[in-house]
Amino acid sequence: MDVLLENIKTYITLNKEELSLLEKKTTKKTYHKKEIIFEEGKISNEIYFVSKGCVRLFYNVDGTDKTAFFYTEGQFICAGESFTFNIPAIENYQAIDHTELIIFTKSDIEILTKQLPKMEIIARVAVENELITSQKVIASFVTKSPEERYLELLKTKKELFQRAPQQYIASFLGISPETLSRIKKRVYNKERS
Amino acid sequence: MDVLLENIKTYITLNKEELSLLEKKTTKKTYHKKEIIFEEGKISNEIYFVSKGCVRLFYNVDGTDKTAFFYTEGQFICAGESFTFNIPAIENYQAIDHTELIIFTKSDIEILTKQLPKMEIIARVAVENELITSQKVIASFVTKSPEERYLELLKTKKELFQRAPQQYIASFLGISPETLSRIKKRVYNKERS
Repeated sequence: MDVLLENIKTYITLNKEELSLLEKKTTKKTYHKKEIIFEEGKISNEIYFVSKGCVRLFYNVDGTDKTAFFYTEGQFICAGESFTFNIPAIENYQAIDHTELIIFTKSDIEILTKQLPKMEIIARVAVENELITSQKVIASFVTKSPEERYLELLKTKKELFQRAPQQYIASFLGISPETLSRIKKRVYNKERS
Repeated sequence: MDVLLENIKTYITLNKEELSLLEKKTTKKTYHKKEIIFEEGKISNEIYFVSKGCVRLFYNVDGTDKTAFFYTEGQFICAGESFTFNIPAIENYQAIDHTELIIFTKSDIEILTKQLPKMEIIARVAVENELITSQKVIASFVTKSPEERYLELLKTKKELFQRAPQQYIASFLGISPETLSRIKKRVYNKERS
């Protein structure tokens, strides 16, 4: 909960009563390594906040899973289209390490908004944050080479390299595990020279 | 304005007074073909709604522009990170045809929210819609081949092929204009056979 409250504190002040309401009306859930959090085909009625660990977003393409993104501590997760329009999602979310999420269900948000008008702002910021994340992913796909994206990941989410299997990282970079090995070697040699 | 009102009507009811307030407090602006709407490096304090025409999102990569997306009628545009955190944007938006936008500036939204509480909902839906758009772009990058993405574009935004120069479409698909020509020919032949 602390990570969420630290996050919220950066843009809004909640008093003691509001804090305890927020704590009471949201759910904390832990997932073990590799556990599936949400599966495609279902209707998503939850927004997640990663308070600990790491979550992988992947799509299923003819039986092969393709990693699109890694969410780490302090990030919101929302399967936008499914959540908004109540249609089956194409997203899959999986814990790639021991992970703790704070879950806002749609009905929690509705109830909370009535008792805590600031909840509307929290929900908007959650969606805004997820939008920013998504737009960064697009910019990175469009403007960067796999090697540049590898370096960016190394800079922004270094802990991933300990946590995530190499094939997920390779899939995220759009390259084969062999190419990832070559890039890693090249970067390592550059850093040493 | 009609396209915006039709869009809003799908999730919220505004009375006559609220409608006229919305109309009074937002700006309609037209852009000629190829006109730059917003340029990287500036701080974005506007959300756009495309009421007519087509807008290209592109990033500048060492002097070459890379097309990331085409927004058409009925879509909201928001440079999320710049708008939220008041930092210089990396996005460029350009009209690729005669285009009409309804512009919500940050201060318009603030003023409107005070007089029209439903504005908070409209702003949230705008951000949600842009999130859905972005997540679809990511899913498409991750799960589809250039040919599949070409077919998807043909299905969802056929009018683009008349409006946008071929090199923009090729750049969006992540291929050369020559490869785009080959794909078009192949698809054309498949359809005829």
